[in-house]
Amino acid sequence: MELLLNRPRLLEIAKRDGIDAFVATSPENVTYASGYWALSQWIRRGPQVHVLLPVADLDAARVIAPTSLLDQLVDQEDVWVRNVSRYGFFHVDRADAPLSESDARLLDLCGQPDEKDALAALLKALQAAGLHKATLAVDELGLMPGHWEQLKRALPDAKLVPAMKLFREIRAVKTPTEIERLRRIATITEASVDAALQLAQPGITEIEMARAFHRTTVEGDGTPVLGCVGFGTRTAMPNVYPSEARLQRGDVIRFDAGGRYRHYRADLARIAVLGEPSRKVQTYHKALHNGVLAAFEAIRPGVRASEVYAVAMQATRQSGIPHYARSHVGHGIGLDGYDMPDLTEVNHQVIEEGMVMCVETPYYEFGWCGLQVENTVVVRKEGVELLHREDGALKVLA
Amino acid sequence: MELLLNRPRLLEIAKRDGIDAFVATSPENVTYASGYWALSQWIRRGPQVHVLLPVADLDAARVIAPTSLLDQLVDQEDVWVRNVSRYGFFHVDRADAPLSESDARLLDLCGQPDEKDALAALLKALQAAGLHKATLAVDELGLMPGHWEQLKRALPDAKLVPAMKLFREIRAVKTPTEIERLRRIATITEASVDAALQLAQPGITEIEMARAFHRTTVEGDGTPVLGCVGFGTRTAMPNVYPSEARLQRGDVIRFDAGGRYRHYRADLARIAVLGEPSRKVQTYHKALHNGVLAAFEAIRPGVRASEVYAVAMQATRQSGIPHYARSHVGHGIGLDGYDMPDLTEVNHQVIEEGMVMCVETPYYEFGWCGLQVENTVVVRKEGVELLHREDGALKVLA
Repeated sequence: MELLLNRPRLLEIAKRDGIDAFVATSPENVTYASGYWALSQWIRRGPQVHVLLPVADLDAARVIAPTSLLDQLVDQEDVWVRNVSRYGFFHVDRADAPLSESDARLLDLCGQPDEKDALAALLKALQAAGLHKATLAVDELGLMPGHWEQLKRALPDAKLVPAMKLFREIRAVKTPTEIERLRRIATITEASVDAALQLAQPGITEIEMARAFHRTTVEGDGTPVLGCVGFGTRTAMPNVYPSEARLQRGDVIRFDAGGRYRHYRADLARIAVLGEPSRKVQTYHKALHNGVLAAFEAIRPGVRASEVYAVAMQATRQSGIPHYARSHVGHGIGLDGYDMPDLTEVNHQVIEEGMVMCVETPYYEFGWCGLQVENTVVVRKEGVELLHREDGALKVLA
Repeated sequence: MELLLNRPRLLEIAKRDGIDAFVATSPENVTYASGYWALSQWIRRGPQVHVLLPVADLDAARVIAPTSLLDQLVDQEDVWVRNVSRYGFFHVDRADAPLSESDARLLDLCGQPDEKDALAALLKALQAAGLHKATLAVDELGLMPGHWEQLKRALPDAKLVPAMKLFREIRAVKTPTEIERLRRIATITEASVDAALQLAQPGITEIEMARAFHRTTVEGDGTPVLGCVGFGTRTAMPNVYPSEARLQRGDVIRFDAGGRYRHYRADLARIAVLGEPSRKVQTYHKALHNGVLAAFEAIRPGVRASEVYAVAMQATRQSGIPHYARSHVGHGIGLDGYDMPDLTEVNHQVIEEGMVMCVETPYYEFGWCGLQVENTVVVRKEGVELLHREDGALKVLA
């Protein structure tokens, strides 16, 4: 009943690469592999949570978590993994009263032996599962410094393979639940831009507009993450950070922003102009928009990422920005804001049904402004489906 | 003119440990060392930003950043480091128009040589500064897997010392700017709890109350981070994640929450009861409150963390929860939600003026509820100063 993990794809990649087990360690891979969103790991660096996925029997998957985070295992409906190893001291008390099912399960988990630390727990679990001589794909991104080397020394007969890229490859093709969450946060983000743009009038600051953007995201139960909002020449800064700069009539407004909904990210760009856009803004934005729309036409299962890149670049250049230069025209999105595939000149990865991508043609001209079209699509059998309402045309505000 | 970095403390620790240079790599240490908040590094794992701080001449500090994030170096007023190495391709255009000072500086930075990757740039900077045979304190937390070993091989004559803990030690004593930001987000968080509690009435869900909490944080220009909000027996879960559970008359409401303001964290707990609290809630909460207040009395420069722990535990046990058990009664707070010092039985670290701490006495009784007092204080010469208005007494809601 796992909702996030693409089981068939994981098994396929395991077979291709001869992998006996995967170990997730970074926040996105832990959540992906098990449904478990371990708070401390997501908001700081250091806390260690692991998920062991034995390929021969995924239902025997095991979560390794600090005792202080066990409550989130019993209270989150996304969690499907039942085997748990805990480590570390955390005291809880118990009333002389009937317990809810989840409280009872939590106290049961708390009563399991303390495995001291995450690495010790992982080694014990690998031994118990007979995987200590196996080929182990270990996500290196979430390990503490030195842990990889410790694992290697402790498992002299195992073959350790870095799994960061393998997990990205598995995550690239989304499950229906993932797609619905990505649709939800893309839609919330689009509505948040619109709510912020409602406030556009001379004198409003970037900070005020960003505040309205994030407020709308929160009201939709999203969590603010990315909020680049700029006016005028400041929009040329790719990561423009909202400031006290005030909007003037004729200014370009650029949003490159998006939150998180149930752990899934959005990344959307929209351009508006307060008043009549200049001829150059119109022409250039149209070119960028054409680039994205041409990519939409090109994207379908079986096409290569590099082909999509070529189509978008050509369309943008031919329709108004002959000197357009750019290293990529998009990227996957999921639990991470940059999932596979990257739409670059050199990435010949084949696009597959179920991939979700942000397709974008940003243009940053210092001394003038920055323009950008960025939309999110899911790849279906016949082509793309937009995960939000609008496709990023220039917004002219009265 | 650096506002975040405690220069004297860094120099003192460098002298004590014989360190010639520090290298910051994790988001909090990069921001701390340079004032540079590098967006991508904060919202995902992977992007590499480093800061080299030569102890003999801190003004010769150098930031190493991806080309795509250079704009944030010229547009953030916290940044005081002037030397920059860049790596990676990122295309920007330039209008035939006058440039603002910051745009001109940005294009200048973009015109510097591409150092290919962060590690190569760091090695080159160390060579150029004559530090390739020095004692280097390198923050291991933000490095990519394998980078530590690569550094070691590339610098056979240098002595590499892990700096994660050293940076935590430096960061433990806050500068006035840091204290003001911590005060601001603590105050925003307190106001956010109060705004959410205004909605307390039978039938409201945890999610609705959490939404009001985060909305108020956003309206104060904070960024939501931590939002544990629970009702009734669910409050016994330490990390209670807001659900569709509905408030009933007599329920305990527990907040353990806090956002970020200009990169600095809050972490505050408040307990309210809708209606008349039971005798047990009153007694237990009073005991927990007394524990925190006793810690306040004990905290002053020169006292050990373990002494504060002992005082808080004893006060809590003596004033109503004789079986009270807990591994710590607080922790530092700053760019990270868990800064030094930890207030534990075994931490004999001496409390210093300028430390900012969350002092807390949580109590989780499954089958009944969770209660918690958590306040943030700065250590002054004579004792503690509260960084927000209220000290965490039980709130009884009509």
